[in-house]
Amino acid sequence: MFRIRRVHIDTQSERVVFIHEDAVQLGELGFQPLDRVNVIGGPIGDPSSAQITGILNFCRNGLVAPDQVGLSEVAFFDLGLPEDALVTPVFSPAPGSLEHVRAKLHGRELTYRNFESILGDVVRHRYSKVELAMFILACALNTINERELVDFTRAMINVGQRLRFGPGLIADKHCIGGVPGNRTSMIVVPILASLGMTVPKTSSRAITSPAGTADTMGTLAEVALRPEHMRSVVDEVGGCIAWGGALGLAPADDILITVERPMEIDTEPQMVASILAKKVTAGATHALIDIPIGDTAKVRSQEAARTLSDLFGRVSQKVGLTVETMITHVNGPVGVGIGPRLEALDVLAVLRGQRGAPVDLRERSIMIAARILEMTSHVPSGRGEAEAVRALDSGAAADTFERIRRAQGERSLPAAAQCREIKAVVSGRIREIDCWRIARVAKRAGAPAHAAAGVRLLETVGNNVLAGDPLYEIHAQSTSQLASAEEYAHGHHMIYQIDRH
Amino acid sequence: MFRIRRVHIDTQSERVVFIHEDAVQLGELGFQPLDRVNVIGGPIGDPSSAQITGILNFCRNGLVAPDQVGLSEVAFFDLGLPEDALVTPVFSPAPGSLEHVRAKLHGRELTYRNFESILGDVVRHRYSKVELAMFILACALNTINERELVDFTRAMINVGQRLRFGPGLIADKHCIGGVPGNRTSMIVVPILASLGMTVPKTSSRAITSPAGTADTMGTLAEVALRPEHMRSVVDEVGGCIAWGGALGLAPADDILITVERPMEIDTEPQMVASILAKKVTAGATHALIDIPIGDTAKVRSQEAARTLSDLFGRVSQKVGLTVETMITHVNGPVGVGIGPRLEALDVLAVLRGQRGAPVDLRERSIMIAARILEMTSHVPSGRGEAEAVRALDSGAAADTFERIRRAQGERSLPAAAQCREIKAVVSGRIREIDCWRIARVAKRAGAPAHAAAGVRLLETVGNNVLAGDPLYEIHAQSTSQLASAEEYAHGHHMIYQIDRH
Repeated sequence: MFRIRRVHIDTQSERVVFIHEDAVQLGELGFQPLDRVNVIGGPIGDPSSAQITGILNFCRNGLVAPDQVGLSEVAFFDLGLPEDALVTPVFSPAPGSLEHVRAKLHGRELTYRNFESILGDVVRHRYSKVELAMFILACALNTINERELVDFTRAMINVGQRLRFGPGLIADKHCIGGVPGNRTSMIVVPILASLGMTVPKTSSRAITSPAGTADTMGTLAEVALRPEHMRSVVDEVGGCIAWGGALGLAPADDILITVERPMEIDTEPQMVASILAKKVTAGATHALIDIPIGDTAKVRSQEAARTLSDLFGRVSQKVGLTVETMITHVNGPVGVGIGPRLEALDVLAVLRGQRGAPVDLRERSIMIAARILEMTSHVPSGRGEAEAVRALDSGAAADTFERIRRAQGERSLPAAAQCREIKAVVSGRIREIDCWRIARVAKRAGAPAHAAAGVRLLETVGNNVLAGDPLYEIHAQSTSQLASAEEYAHGHHMIYQIDRH
Repeated sequence: MFRIRRVHIDTQSERVVFIHEDAVQLGELGFQPLDRVNVIGGPIGDPSSAQITGILNFCRNGLVAPDQVGLSEVAFFDLGLPEDALVTPVFSPAPGSLEHVRAKLHGRELTYRNFESILGDVVRHRYSKVELAMFILACALNTINERELVDFTRAMINVGQRLRFGPGLIADKHCIGGVPGNRTSMIVVPILASLGMTVPKTSSRAITSPAGTADTMGTLAEVALRPEHMRSVVDEVGGCIAWGGALGLAPADDILITVERPMEIDTEPQMVASILAKKVTAGATHALIDIPIGDTAKVRSQEAARTLSDLFGRVSQKVGLTVETMITHVNGPVGVGIGPRLEALDVLAVLRGQRGAPVDLRERSIMIAARILEMTSHVPSGRGEAEAVRALDSGAAADTFERIRRAQGERSLPAAAQCREIKAVVSGRIREIDCWRIARVAKRAGAPAHAAAGVRLLETVGNNVLAGDPLYEIHAQSTSQLASAEEYAHGHHMIYQIDRH
């Protein structure tokens, strides 16, 4: 028997079990590192014994004693026993559903039941990081057909809980990523709610970008809402902007993302299933999906956007969601801020109609709100844009946004960080700003972990600049990150693509 | 600045860096879990500063203080600075070669330079486990063509050191895995060496099996030899049986294996590249590859064996190695022992000509030795078998084996473990023994981590048994592992496929 030790290591979604090498070499156990271990708190074979399965790491002196079993945070909480409780670790075979993952890797078609058992094991934290990567890659490599994608999406919806609002239409929206600063949700939701629609918006934190909507909204209000809290906000104001991760909606997706992020792999099936599952489980009946096309955005051609749009259309129909898509072109970030705090400032400027508020962010938001108003027949066809503009310009949307902030729990914007300007090295007209690379600068500066870190554009596409003119500011909390972001910026002058006169 | 803390966690080939959550949230850093971090011991940007790159884990109270950076074992040793030395952690971009991995995932052909840069980063421990999995899967899914396989093999050879013996022919052999107890190397090497050949054999530890040759040899002699030691053994005796992992030969392979093992994925390109690279870097000029076919072995059909054999032939030619293959049929394990100690007993019985020594192990070893003697023209064509039999029956091979043991550093066999018999549930003739499942029993019993754990067959293929007759023994060091192996055995009666009379 071994005693539990909580080792206070956050291993994300992976349960890790730490065992002293001596216990393995000399004693009762016969494990190898990275083996899967079942930690049982009670008689072995008794189904009422608390138990968890985790991945084994070996330790020497320091972390755990030879008679202790160390548990990472997620393993400790899932087992639910106190420190020093007695447990027995035994070798555990891999979860049975891994056979389906291996079969998929070898090209077999998976059934709905297969996806359900895989995602069931995923949400029970039975997959290691490497196994999560196997599943993601097995589905990523275009070996998943459309019937499978529908079943994958259904399984994602069914493994986890589902909110229901209504009766009546529930509207939602989503923007495909890759375009920094594209924080339309925080403007569209208050526009729609101020016009009487129900918009229980859930958003994600950044996966590979410098800020997700949940990160940006998180600088102005609490976003980690429990389902009851979210419901009360929606009941009161008509809409909310909450972090999906705290709600247990399509939880498999949140776990897959922990591995997708460091892989920096964009997988189309995963994206389609993830977006649709999040909408359905958040209770939506209608959703608009914005697909921005740009040379440096996630979707790079009209054809790719069209294919993706068609795929969304067909799969959404099968899972009972009405979806329209909107294809737009971008040649740089939306707005002037990149990073949670700086993007929040853009959003506030548009809502409040401030001088210098980014026109592109305002226009995109109006266009999206208009489409949703019309697709749900909330306003007559052709009236969407006028209604959206009125909601914004009358201050109704700004008022609704402030009510949402208060209902969720208001936060004040973090203080500004230290900043440094990056200057143009040539003169000419700015043709394009590289979305991906400018995002790297913001990430190196510390976004999104540091909410005030990021980039503020001083010049945008179409402007004429002279060599030596400041192009953008880097904001960072620490000098080392400021230096790291600056180094990247100086090494990549093509972030701003300037046509010489 | 942070102080180094060695946290004594064995994270295998992955460098892990532990940082206190408070240091991230409040202080100088802007990281997320699983970010890649550069830990620098000296001025940033100074190329002479000691530095390593690792994957970030967050901790709370206990493991590291907010002003400490915890390092896993491999990270600590690679950085080479003492505990409490001052370091700066900064965000680190992913190694550039990951772009090639991502391109491969999307179907691009890779060049020799691409493979070289990938494997170079792998051996510098710059890949996380998830990234290693990405590379393995990218190559595994039959998207690697033959030209790429040749370049992959060449890169594996060139990234790391290479031993040279000779002048003259240097012989080697390899058996494709999946057949427990197939420990012919430990018999073939002394036969060949006693006949004057040079056989600097390097072997691997178990990947997914209950014992590799290095594990089995390790119960009788030291196998973790430094290159100089290996050379002196070969100079003195003509052959050795060393663990390849200690020699730094094709080190990328050893790192890829740490992830392949928990994935339990057999990848043909990885196997071909791995085997050929190990032979070439160990100095071999000629090698025989044994491909056993069986319903439950790794290779399951004559056609698959033929394809694999042809692939070995073509790729080996391009990397300057003369290879012949030998295709044999198996319908169960070779010998009667499974697990390091029990397999070593089989080897000793054959070498010493003991009564009851397994005939199949003896015959396979003679066949392999004979083919190598003839393919290298060390003996005239048609004389190989007679010479091999003579070397074995005269005791010359046994003497050579004992000299190899002494030269490597003799060890005495571990003591026997507790054991339990598994009995037949029906009467009849044993048609086949399931290689994969009997290996599972041995692994559950604790092999190879516990050298004495494993399975000893009491009845083999072709024998007639009555219900209630003992079929095999399970050997284990701990009662819980004995119980776990027994449970599996009782749940899988088809391990012994018995045709009822």
